[in-house]
Amino acid sequence: MQLGLSVSDSDVSSFTPLVVLELADDTKAEAITWLLNRIRGKQQNGGAELLVDQLLFPAQDGQKSNQNVFVVGSTLQRLLKGAEDVGLFKEFQDGTMRGFTYANRESFKDFYGDGEGFLSDAECQYIIKHELDTLRAKNEEHVPGYPKVKLYPGKSVVRRLQSKGVLVQYFPLHNKEDLKRLSFSWYKKIKLSFQPLDDIRHYFGEGLALYFGFLEYFTFALVPMAFIGIPYYLFDWEDYDKYVLFAVFNLVWSTVFLEVWKRCSATLAYGWGTLSHKKAFEEPRAGFHGALGFNPITGREEPVYPSSKYHLRIYLVSVPFVLLCLYLSFYVMMVYFDMENWAISIYNENPNLATGILLFVPSIIYAVVIEIMNLLYRYAAEFLTNWENHRLESSFQNHLVLKVLVFNFVNCFASLFYIAFVMQDMVLLRQSLATLLITSQILNQVMEAFLPYWLQRRRNKKVHKRMRRMMGDKELPLLEQVQLETEMNTYLGTFDDYLEQFLLFGYVSLFSCVYPLAAVLVVLNNITEVYSDAFKMCHVFKRPFSEPAANIGVWQLAFETMSIISVVTNCALIGLSSQVKAYFPESETQMILIVVAIEHVLLAFKFILAFVIPDVPKHIQVKLAKLEFDSLEALKKRQYENV
Amino acid sequence: MQLGLSVSDSDVSSFTPLVVLELADDTKAEAITWLLNRIRGKQQNGGAELLVDQLLFPAQDGQKSNQNVFVVGSTLQRLLKGAEDVGLFKEFQDGTMRGFTYANRESFKDFYGDGEGFLSDAECQYIIKHELDTLRAKNEEHVPGYPKVKLYPGKSVVRRLQSKGVLVQYFPLHNKEDLKRLSFSWYKKIKLSFQPLDDIRHYFGEGLALYFGFLEYFTFALVPMAFIGIPYYLFDWEDYDKYVLFAVFNLVWSTVFLEVWKRCSATLAYGWGTLSHKKAFEEPRAGFHGALGFNPITGREEPVYPSSKYHLRIYLVSVPFVLLCLYLSFYVMMVYFDMENWAISIYNENPNLATGILLFVPSIIYAVVIEIMNLLYRYAAEFLTNWENHRLESSFQNHLVLKVLVFNFVNCFASLFYIAFVMQDMVLLRQSLATLLITSQILNQVMEAFLPYWLQRRRNKKVHKRMRRMMGDKELPLLEQVQLETEMNTYLGTFDDYLEQFLLFGYVSLFSCVYPLAAVLVVLNNITEVYSDAFKMCHVFKRPFSEPAANIGVWQLAFETMSIISVVTNCALIGLSSQVKAYFPESETQMILIVVAIEHVLLAFKFILAFVIPDVPKHIQVKLAKLEFDSLEALKKRQYENV
Repeated sequence: MQLGLSVSDSDVSSFTPLVVLELADDTKAEAITWLLNRIRGKQQNGGAELLVDQLLFPAQDGQKSNQNVFVVGSTLQRLLKGAEDVGLFKEFQDGTMRGFTYANRESFKDFYGDGEGFLSDAECQYIIKHELDTLRAKNEEHVPGYPKVKLYPGKSVVRRLQSKGVLVQYFPLHNKEDLKRLSFSWYKKIKLSFQPLDDIRHYFGEGLALYFGFLEYFTFALVPMAFIGIPYYLFDWEDYDKYVLFAVFNLVWSTVFLEVWKRCSATLAYGWGTLSHKKAFEEPRAGFHGALGFNPITGREEPVYPSSKYHLRIYLVSVPFVLLCLYLSFYVMMVYFDMENWAISIYNENPNLATGILLFVPSIIYAVVIEIMNLLYRYAAEFLTNWENHRLESSFQNHLVLKVLVFNFVNCFASLFYIAFVMQDMVLLRQSLATLLITSQILNQVMEAFLPYWLQRRRNKKVHKRMRRMMGDKELPLLEQVQLETEMNTYLGTFDDYLEQFLLFGYVSLFSCVYPLAAVLVVLNNITEVYSDAFKMCHVFKRPFSEPAANIGVWQLAFETMSIISVVTNCALIGLSSQVKAYFPESETQMILIVVAIEHVLLAFKFILAFVIPDVPKHIQVKLAKLEFDSLEALKKRQYENV
Repeated sequence: MQLGLSVSDSDVSSFTPLVVLELADDTKAEAITWLLNRIRGKQQNGGAELLVDQLLFPAQDGQKSNQNVFVVGSTLQRLLKGAEDVGLFKEFQDGTMRGFTYANRESFKDFYGDGEGFLSDAECQYIIKHELDTLRAKNEEHVPGYPKVKLYPGKSVVRRLQSKGVLVQYFPLHNKEDLKRLSFSWYKKIKLSFQPLDDIRHYFGEGLALYFGFLEYFTFALVPMAFIGIPYYLFDWEDYDKYVLFAVFNLVWSTVFLEVWKRCSATLAYGWGTLSHKKAFEEPRAGFHGALGFNPITGREEPVYPSSKYHLRIYLVSVPFVLLCLYLSFYVMMVYFDMENWAISIYNENPNLATGILLFVPSIIYAVVIEIMNLLYRYAAEFLTNWENHRLESSFQNHLVLKVLVFNFVNCFASLFYIAFVMQDMVLLRQSLATLLITSQILNQVMEAFLPYWLQRRRNKKVHKRMRRMMGDKELPLLEQVQLETEMNTYLGTFDDYLEQFLLFGYVSLFSCVYPLAAVLVVLNNITEVYSDAFKMCHVFKRPFSEPAANIGVWQLAFETMSIISVVTNCALIGLSSQVKAYFPESETQMILIVVAIEHVLLAFKFILAFVIPDVPKHIQVKLAKLEFDSLEALKKRQYENV
């Protein structure tokens, strides 16, 4: 555990601070005292047994900074015990991954001395977050000093404070030294090596490391497609058989690469100890509410909520809502095409500058409407998913992702589908595809990295200046760092990053035989994407809390579904091409039947391929089975001892 | 453990016999002595520690019966220890299923006193079979007295003796009293109740009980289809929209009922303790060979075989072989249709009796050729699957089933597909379907139950008479029972029974909208099938060894695949119908596109439905997760104690 802040900070706090807790400026003193007592309290009394200290910013120019900023840390022993609570898996002395236990700490592989360095920074912060999140109300009826902020036994204290605005935010602190080392090996040197996934995982946790692993894997997987696509573009190949070849290659390739990714991610997750980390044993997420009861599996006391209600909410409210939104989105698209036709007809009747400008109006209106719809829908989806009351963070994320995904897919591709299959205009399709791909890439890079970076730099300079004025010559790097990071933007999770890759995959695969160059553009985009994403994680956003993840979750399903849809679209496109039609001059019906037959064969082949390739590599399967076998044997022995 | 044979048999053997072992009449005495010593030997010396006795049949009329018949039994203690070896799961005192351990036997729910009645008859016999099968050669170079029957360390002794013809057969004995009780509750009374699945499982084991459970479930599931099908037949409904309704209902229904069956079978298997019985921990099957090594999961000494070789054998030999056979089968079908056309043309040229008879010749030749091909292929498939060297019995069975299944599917349905989609003759299709269905049902019932029963009764009478003559007035029921059962036919497993149901499902679902009455016929067939199958298990065949099974294995996959194919065929049939064509008089292309679109939507809906319905009911999931959690906790504790 390299808790980067040096000993010179000891004048500010007596322990290495890991997490910052910012309460509202006007928080009542009794609420603060109560919260700190709960955080510091013994575990057997329902406390978190953590260390917490107030940061005092010197007032200056009458401009008082927020005084209610706290840093939270912990003793090493408490962290190790917390590692057992959250169920971390670590490498055992025999090379397999085992559930960590404090009592048995000495038998784990990298445990030396008192355990310094055994837990990564990200893990320590995750443990502290978990302990804070699971601080649950006991018999308090409300937060002291706030009679309106009601509490009931089992309610997460931190969650209630956050929802009522008393707790402004809490986030993990960067570790400047580690960050410097990481960013050097990650993106500062021009290199042909792979990304330092283990270091990323060490610093940011498994969820983010898996995203970068996937990004790298996906980019490499697109390289063959890109290479094959270039000659199609250069030599203007428009032959039917070459297109078919390209489409078939794409299909097989996308199936294989998605299946192989599962194996890669299983290998990574096993080594990081998250593959055996079972969801059912996880503590419920902070937002989960219900009557306090006992978990039937672990026997722990925690909120319990009937699964029938949860299913009713999903199927009777969320699903109809999503379908309604999709219908609305289609409707808006149809209005757009009507408007466009109307604009073209007016221009054709009377072509002058005014009507020429009018030609662009429908597209602009459509783009704006779509953006607004996406935004509104995103809020609605978050609200609904929250209301569905998922017990696990992963389940919450998956349902949220699924909702947003479907809507974005329709918004992004519906117009392309319309052009391809209703208007059947391949030239327009190719143009639209290229325009969409290139503009979205450029916009993305600017909006995602450069703009935030520029804003961040301006803010940094301001804060720096302010701190200099406040402190005079005193060097108080911790205060300055906290001040800086408090004002950084919050990273909202890998959602948008995955969504971007998902849409890019759609551009590459759905219409690949119309625009083979798409893969080249996406590869180029992703090479810069790796750097800009890495940079934004290190310097633009607050450090995020680590999320243990065993796989990329619902995104795997999303990518697989996209590759199935792409088989259908590519077959349909080939069927529409004039070259193929020329092969069957006498009977269009026969041509369609043959194309449909080929499509079915390809789909069947795809399913067989996915079925035949095992999701987890053999050697990992053996290790998992060994863990299970040893566990069952241990249980047999224990039953005996208990009798 | 009700070991049904009464104490009056004590003059024949001093223990309750469970399994009969028949060696060849001319087996060398030293081989017999060696084998019996191995069976009786202590476990630490590599023996099986079982009880074994010779049965002496009095010679009579110079006709000497085989004298090398042995009965094997066991002490109760040995059986309980064996139950731990094979990894039986039993209900624990807290109501969950736990791995049984001898040391801990008192804490299991139904364990009273010394454990009499704790293990079912079928389990005892399974344990004895397992112990006999895993008798492995140590340092013997060959079987004593047979220098040519080579052995090497780790080779299963019983298997080698069986393959060389020294061991003629070994099988479990019936328990007359239990059998009487079972057959009464099962099929002797006319009743409207469900089958006594628990009793069947108790007597025949889980594999067979699951088959009867599936048979019953499948029949009930067809009842709604049958009810909806009847009016179509009675009122000659040929309307397009009604057919579509029927097809859509069939599709949704077949998806739902297959998904729900998974849940039912999981519930049954959990109660029987086979759901948690993990395949990876099973002992390898008797026929598995390889160099003696250590299992990486359990650490037990057993044959080890590289999985790369196994995969090479499957993909480079078995798959091409199966594809070749399928091609051959298609080719034969095409020849048949050519022959038929030729016969019809001759008849049309010169219609008289001789050419009239000629009309039937192609069908007869085709039927005979198909039967021969099926038979040859079956042998080839068994040989190949054996040669693939599967470690587990379940894996062996699945690969064998898959091979035979595909071939039978093609043989059975290829001609129907040809009639439906190439000849497009719906009247002929309906005729062929009805003919195939009815004749195959009648043939099946006769071949499967009545014929064997009749043969068996004749044989029984003969044996009875012979025994009477041999024994004079002495009552020796055990000798007579053994003599009778030795000569009964061997039940070759549930394979043919499932295959029959699979083909019936094909008739019902593939062309359901052409012949809605199929479901009625299948329901009628299955009602008698339950009785005839039950009867044949109790009275026609030797009692089979119990096979622990957690589900119906590859048959689930087969039925699901069939229901996917049936979506495609039904959509195609609807597209071909003249009523639908009449709806789109101007454009056939448009009609095809709409049909294809509907088909895709239906398939997508099917996959979503299968994805949304969980395979294991919630309460079983919780129990399984609890077992896993308790196991992991126990492992954590044990790690600590070992340090």
